[in-house]
Amino acid sequence: MNLDALLADYTRTVDRMLNQWLPKESAKPATIHRAMRYSLFAGGKRMRPALCLAAAQACGIRRLADALPAACAVECVHTYSLIHDDLPCMDNDDLRRGRPTSHKVFGDGVAVLAGDALLTVAFEILAKTKPTERYDLADSISELARAAGSRFLIGGQVADLEAEGKKSDAAGLRFIHRGKTAAMIICSLKLGAMSANATPRTLRILEEFGDHLGLAFQVIDDILDVTQSSEKLGKSAGKDAAAGKTTYPAVLGLEASKKEAARLTEKALACLSPISERSAILRALAQKLLARQS
Amino acid sequence: MNLDALLADYTRTVDRMLNQWLPKESAKPATIHRAMRYSLFAGGKRMRPALCLAAAQACGIRRLADALPAACAVECVHTYSLIHDDLPCMDNDDLRRGRPTSHKVFGDGVAVLAGDALLTVAFEILAKTKPTERYDLADSISELARAAGSRFLIGGQVADLEAEGKKSDAAGLRFIHRGKTAAMIICSLKLGAMSANATPRTLRILEEFGDHLGLAFQVIDDILDVTQSSEKLGKSAGKDAAAGKTTYPAVLGLEASKKEAARLTEKALACLSPISERSAILRALAQKLLARQS
Repeated sequence: MNLDALLADYTRTVDRMLNQWLPKESAKPATIHRAMRYSLFAGGKRMRPALCLAAAQACGIRRLADALPAACAVECVHTYSLIHDDLPCMDNDDLRRGRPTSHKVFGDGVAVLAGDALLTVAFEILAKTKPTERYDLADSISELARAAGSRFLIGGQVADLEAEGKKSDAAGLRFIHRGKTAAMIICSLKLGAMSANATPRTLRILEEFGDHLGLAFQVIDDILDVTQSSEKLGKSAGKDAAAGKTTYPAVLGLEASKKEAARLTEKALACLSPISERSAILRALAQKLLARQS
Repeated sequence: MNLDALLADYTRTVDRMLNQWLPKESAKPATIHRAMRYSLFAGGKRMRPALCLAAAQACGIRRLADALPAACAVECVHTYSLIHDDLPCMDNDDLRRGRPTSHKVFGDGVAVLAGDALLTVAFEILAKTKPTERYDLADSISELARAAGSRFLIGGQVADLEAEGKKSDAAGLRFIHRGKTAAMIICSLKLGAMSANATPRTLRILEEFGDHLGLAFQVIDDILDVTQSSEKLGKSAGKDAAAGKTTYPAVLGLEASKKEAARLTEKALACLSPISERSAILRALAQKLLARQS
């Protein structure tokens, strides 16, 4: 398997569908549609759509196209959350994916609205999901709304805001990361699996895999924040320490953090053993995420 | 028919279900759930849920409970849009429904997130809608996402931001009002009707009714902004003129604006004649909106 070629293929397909399902840039009012597309087509890694499509394939989906609404919806939600997190009233970031953040280009008001619009269109896109024998649209919508909602994605950001300048304990840090990172990774996997009519047992396996993977991803994020340049990351480096946030390298030290990331990735991979025949792409993806440098 | 008693009944039922379907205030992190409930239970008039339920009854719904997910979802979307519109980077308002706005109480960051969370939970709630013979959940989700999305509700707010300090022409003003006000009124009516398995013809009738009613509602809003006190309105009066916005009283004069509101309400009521037997509540509601003083 050539993972990079496969991922490039996923990205091309997802980008084509996002382009088709989003209003044209010329649609009235043009500003909002320009702002939506500015952030959505900023060269994101499309990790969540890839996890969604890889999970669908691991569950033996017949037509990969059936998982595309879910893959595109999770990317819209991810992009909206970045736009809002970068706002001056949140993490106040000027740089994202190597470009000025939305509010730097369009102003704070339009940036808030561009995020709102991407969150809204995510549900419009997800509504294109066809029901399977086991799952109907209500299951998919509830899954996305729950992961993106006040107890997970949004809740994690609130807890993160409240943790600024305070020392967080392990449970507090875990709550933030489960919300901000793991929940949408798990959701991406589950929505992909549901498009493939996976059994409830397989959904639970993917949930556990995603929980470990999400945590590993976050530890690596914390490591990169202290070891890489802003240029390399495409976003401001050293932000966590500057904001007085508790991070893994600060608590565990850098070397122990790297070991922790590897340990969590191993733990994630071990979860996949009951579905090992079909999960080669998922495994390769998890290993690639562990090795990432940006 | 005692309209006020009926509306009080609608409100009690909608509030009970919103309370049940929203995470408890104690759910972690408590801040976001407090903020969501602070704005949602601030004594709003519940006009959109009322229009939704009245439309469902006009279409002969058997169990009114079947329209409650839609009625609650449109109120969550409405409340989210008020929280975001009131932000300093938008209309910068300190007062709403007679209380300090969300960002005044919780700070700008949590206010953005409370709006995001209400938008997200709207779709989670709407996903409880049962399919009817003619409409499935995909129809309801698409309808809400379209009305609340970048071409209507959000698009109207963008056009409104861009119109500040400029003279708008009639078409520009119409675009803003169709997006900011009429779209969600039409959506409320249609979702209620869809819960009742209404025919496509009835949906078109309600769409036309809602378009006129929404415009009338906006003209009245503009009139109240110049004739009433902040105390009476529960929000800052005189804001439109201060922000250099084009309003109906500014363009037409006060007396002609009142006549225009009455004319639009008449036009709206005329649309209902093909479904006149059952639309008594909708008619009464439209007339009450015309006569409102706050």
